[in-house]
Amino acid sequence: MGMAHRVYLAGPDVFLANPQQAGELKKRLCATYGFEGVFPLDAELKTAGLDLREIGLRISAANEHLIQTCQLVIAQITPFRGPSADVGTAYEMGYARALGLPIYAYTNVEEDFLARTRDFVGATHARAGGAIEDTDGLELESFRLVDNLMLAGAIELSGGCLSSTATTPANRYTQLSAFEQCLRVAREAMRSPRS
Amino acid sequence: MGMAHRVYLAGPDVFLANPQQAGELKKRLCATYGFEGVFPLDAELKTAGLDLREIGLRISAANEHLIQTCQLVIAQITPFRGPSADVGTAYEMGYARALGLPIYAYTNVEEDFLARTRDFVGATHARAGGAIEDTDGLELESFRLVDNLMLAGAIELSGGCLSSTATTPANRYTQLSAFEQCLRVAREAMRSPRS
Repeated sequence: MGMAHRVYLAGPDVFLANPQQAGELKKRLCATYGFEGVFPLDAELKTAGLDLREIGLRISAANEHLIQTCQLVIAQITPFRGPSADVGTAYEMGYARALGLPIYAYTNVEEDFLARTRDFVGATHARAGGAIEDTDGLELESFRLVDNLMLAGAIELSGGCLSSTATTPANRYTQLSAFEQCLRVAREAMRSPRS
Repeated sequence: MGMAHRVYLAGPDVFLANPQQAGELKKRLCATYGFEGVFPLDAELKTAGLDLREIGLRISAANEHLIQTCQLVIAQITPFRGPSADVGTAYEMGYARALGLPIYAYTNVEEDFLARTRDFVGATHARAGGAIEDTDGLELESFRLVDNLMLAGAIELSGGCLSSTATTPANRYTQLSAFEQCLRVAREAMRSPRS
């Protein structure tokens, strides 16, 4: 490999108590596999004098710019405050997918999406056609995919891969074995490009 | 206006009991404002003989293709099974944003994101620096934006706009006044392009 491929590290890791440390751990693992990890907090922002709203928008623009400088994404899609992945991560997956980047993803929860959604919504009913809905009449996706079909599709159709493992609640967002598996597969893919 | 601009109608509307009807209502409103509405279920898919997983992936690919044929997006970001928007919608916003489309969005819940997240996670603590975290030690975003900063940034930075209204729980995903406000603003923007 020549210049190291840059990997955008999407995920709710930015919400951890020490996100810089979490980012450094991931970057070190990336380096082990010949990649350069790019963490959402890497952009140096000048925020002096800005209000909270403006700071949020600057971070958004900076993250989009960082994705544009990367050649692939590894997204943590461990369910976050609900049955699905963090929406910021989902957004970034869509952004990267439209740029043509391969989307690798991992989750530290192995329970399937339908089961997670059932747990979350509580009572469900079967519709006449067999579809399952919650008590608000909203359907539960039951395609046997890891999450919403757009996320699962991105991983599959972009040439990335999904890695999952189970862990304890305390390690839910920090466990890196499934992340490392993505790096392993991505390194193989870079060595023997498909096209 | 010459050929009608095509609007991709992103949102959890596809999970409603009668999504086709919900899509038709939105399309009729689009036509009133000179737009052609494009609903995620519009693609005609051949799914005979396919397993559930494969059907899900086909829908994903079809939706991405539909977005590519559109000139703008109006996304319903009403909170869905958690404090944030539906992840499929978030993904599609990111996808469209990377293609350079303006992202209009509406929500039928006016409570702010921090308040919604507090309600969802229950107990919170203040970190030493003043940030707020949940009992799992994960930070709550407090940028005074409508949702995760990537979603809010997409709306603001793409030249779209956000419209919000309050409604009853029964109309949470079907109320169309804020949707119509997006159409109104989008029509104005099309008549007097910024650049």
